[in-house]
Amino acid sequence: MTQGQPGPFSIVPFVSVDDMMKLTLDIGVEQMLYDLAQWIEQDFRRWEQFEKTPRVAAHSDEGVIELMPISDGEAYGFKYVNGHPKNTRSGRQTVTAFGVLSDVENGYPVLLTEMTLLTALRTAATSAMVARHLMPEGASTMAMIGNGAQSEFQCLAFRAVCGIKRVQLFDIDPAATAKAVRNLEAQGLDVVGCASSQEAVEGAQIITTCTADKQYATILTDNMVGNGVHINAIGGDCPGKTELHRDILTRSEIFVEYPPQTRVEGEIQQLDADHPVTEMWKVITGQAPGRTSSRQVTLFDSVGFATEDFSALRYVHAQLKTYPYYQNLDLLADPDDPRDLFGMLMRKQAQSGMS
Amino acid sequence: MTQGQPGPFSIVPFVSVDDMMKLTLDIGVEQMLYDLAQWIEQDFRRWEQFEKTPRVAAHSDEGVIELMPISDGEAYGFKYVNGHPKNTRSGRQTVTAFGVLSDVENGYPVLLTEMTLLTALRTAATSAMVARHLMPEGASTMAMIGNGAQSEFQCLAFRAVCGIKRVQLFDIDPAATAKAVRNLEAQGLDVVGCASSQEAVEGAQIITTCTADKQYATILTDNMVGNGVHINAIGGDCPGKTELHRDILTRSEIFVEYPPQTRVEGEIQQLDADHPVTEMWKVITGQAPGRTSSRQVTLFDSVGFATEDFSALRYVHAQLKTYPYYQNLDLLADPDDPRDLFGMLMRKQAQSGMS
Repeated sequence: MTQGQPGPFSIVPFVSVDDMMKLTLDIGVEQMLYDLAQWIEQDFRRWEQFEKTPRVAAHSDEGVIELMPISDGEAYGFKYVNGHPKNTRSGRQTVTAFGVLSDVENGYPVLLTEMTLLTALRTAATSAMVARHLMPEGASTMAMIGNGAQSEFQCLAFRAVCGIKRVQLFDIDPAATAKAVRNLEAQGLDVVGCASSQEAVEGAQIITTCTADKQYATILTDNMVGNGVHINAIGGDCPGKTELHRDILTRSEIFVEYPPQTRVEGEIQQLDADHPVTEMWKVITGQAPGRTSSRQVTLFDSVGFATEDFSALRYVHAQLKTYPYYQNLDLLADPDDPRDLFGMLMRKQAQSGMS
Repeated sequence: MTQGQPGPFSIVPFVSVDDMMKLTLDIGVEQMLYDLAQWIEQDFRRWEQFEKTPRVAAHSDEGVIELMPISDGEAYGFKYVNGHPKNTRSGRQTVTAFGVLSDVENGYPVLLTEMTLLTALRTAATSAMVARHLMPEGASTMAMIGNGAQSEFQCLAFRAVCGIKRVQLFDIDPAATAKAVRNLEAQGLDVVGCASSQEAVEGAQIITTCTADKQYATILTDNMVGNGVHINAIGGDCPGKTELHRDILTRSEIFVEYPPQTRVEGEIQQLDADHPVTEMWKVITGQAPGRTSSRQVTLFDSVGFATEDFSALRYVHAQLKTYPYYQNLDLLADPDDPRDLFGMLMRKQAQSGMS
C-alpha cells in the first residue's frame, strides 16, 4: 500500500440514501421487495442458528434509540434505529436507521448502509412473506389503515409477494391517504381512498394496520374484523403502543417473530404473558400449523426483528458485487504494522508537513 | 431543499481515519490527550447523570464484537468495537472501532467517526487522568509493559497529564519494544528499552501493563511491585483475560470505572465478587479517598467504559466547529414530506430517468 493512503483493510463500503434509492430503482421496487421476502424467509428457515438478543433500547420522553444486534456465527449485523413520533413536526422522520454488517472471524465491518429506506422495504417484505403463509386462499383485496411512510411499501410488497390487486386506504389524516392514493395509482394498483376504517376493511381479506402514535390506540375494533381475515399489525412496536382492541386478539390465532420481544412490544402486551402464540419460523419450517380453516382470523403481531435486518444487510451487501451504488469509506485504521498505530500517525505528519 | 439533493436533516458529519489523524496532528497529540483527559474527567464528575448499560457483546471463538451505548439524557453515544487477538496475523488490528453520537430529542445521529485511533487516545487519556489522582507524589518514571498499538499513547498521555519524564519499555517481542522506543524517542521522551519486566519496573513509580492475549496471563508478579507504586492495568478487558498475579490484587487498593463491568472483564474477575473496590468517579468528586499513604499500592483496573467514549465523541463533535476534518454523509432519508418516503423514491426515479 502507498504511504498515507488508506490500506486494503481500512475501507468499508457505504450505501447512502441516494445510493439505496438508485439500487432500489435499478433492481425495481417490487422485485427488491420480492427478493427481500425470499432472503428473509431463508433466514427464518435457519432460525435456530442465530444468536438472538432482545434489542437494547434507550428510552426518553420523546422517543427511543435502539441497537439491534444479531449473528449467525459467520456474519454479525446490527441496526441503529430511532422512534420519535413527534419528529414529523420538525420535518424529520419518525423512524430513521442505519446498519452495519461485519465478519465474525475478524470483527471488521464489511458494509455500512442507510437503513431508513431499507427498513421500510424489509418490513413490508416480512409482512408479505408472512401473509403468504397465513392469508386466506384467493385473497385479492387489502385494507391499509395508516397511510404514512410505510404504507406504499406494504401495498407493493403484498402485490409482489401475495398477488393482491386492490388496496383500500384509510388514515385519520385525509392528506396522508391522498398522498398514498396518488403514489399507488401511479404504480398501477387498484386503489380506493376511504373515509373510515370501517369502509376500508369492507370486502378485504387482509387488513394491515400501520399507525405511529406512541400510545395505546384502538385502530380496529372486533366488529370490524370478519371471519377468515388475515390481520397484519405493524404499528404496535414498543411498550405502551398498540393498535388493536383486545377482543380481536383473543379471537385470533396469533403469530409472532420472537416471543420475548413481542410480549413487551407487540399487540400481545395487552394479554397474559402465557397467552399462546405461534412463532413464524415454526410455521415456515412446517413444525407448527399456520392457518387451519377458512373462517379463522390469523394475526401477525409484527414488531420487527433483527434477523430481518440481517437478511436485508446481507442482501444489500451481495448486490454490491453487481451494482456500483456505494462509496468507499476510510472507516478503519490500517497501519502497515498493526501494532504501530502511533507510527501511522507520525508518518501522516511527515507526509503532510504538519507540526 | 432542491429535489433529489440530500436535505438538511439527511447529513451526518463523518470523521474518517485520515481526518482523525489530521485533527489529532493539527491539535497536537499531547494537547489532544490533555484535552480528552479534561473532558473525560468532567463526565466522571457527573457520573450519576448517565444511563449506564453494560456493553452488549457477541462472542465467538476468534474474538468479540461489542456495542457500548450510553446517554446523559441529552446526547446518546455508542461505540462498535471488536477484539480479535489473532488479527495481527492477517495484518489487521486487534481492536478497531467506530462510534456515533446522537441527539436524544429526535434520535438523529450528529456524528459518525472512526474510533480506532480515538479509542487509543481516550484510553491513554483516561489512564493518565486516573493516575493524576492516584500516583505517588513526584512520580517521574513509568514502566510500560506491552509495547503494542496503545503503548506510545499511554506514554505521551502520562507526560502530558502527569508530568512523567522517563519510560522503561518491555515486550515479549523485542521488535515491538524497538518500534515503541523509536517512536517515543522522536517525541523527546527519555526512553529505555528493557530485556525483562523486572528491568522495566526498576525505579518506576508507575507501572502500566497493556498486553493483548485473550487468556489468563501473569505479566507482573507480586515481588516485582514495590510499595507506593501506582499500577495502571489496561490489558485485562474481557472475560478470561487478565495480566496481574492475584497476590498483587489482594495487596492493592483497587480502583475501577464501573464495577458491574469490571467484575466480569477486569483483573478483579480473579477475586470474590464482593472484594472491595473504589469507583473512580467517587474519588474524583471527593466522595471516596484515593491514595492514602506513600507506601500504598494503588491499582487502576481499567477495562474501558462507555462514558469515556461518550466524552471523546462529544469532544470530536465540538472540534468540528473549528476544524474542517470531516465529510458530509447522506446517511438519513429526508423526504420533503416525512410521511412520503415512497414519494422521495419516485421523484428520484423521475429525476434520474430510471425505469
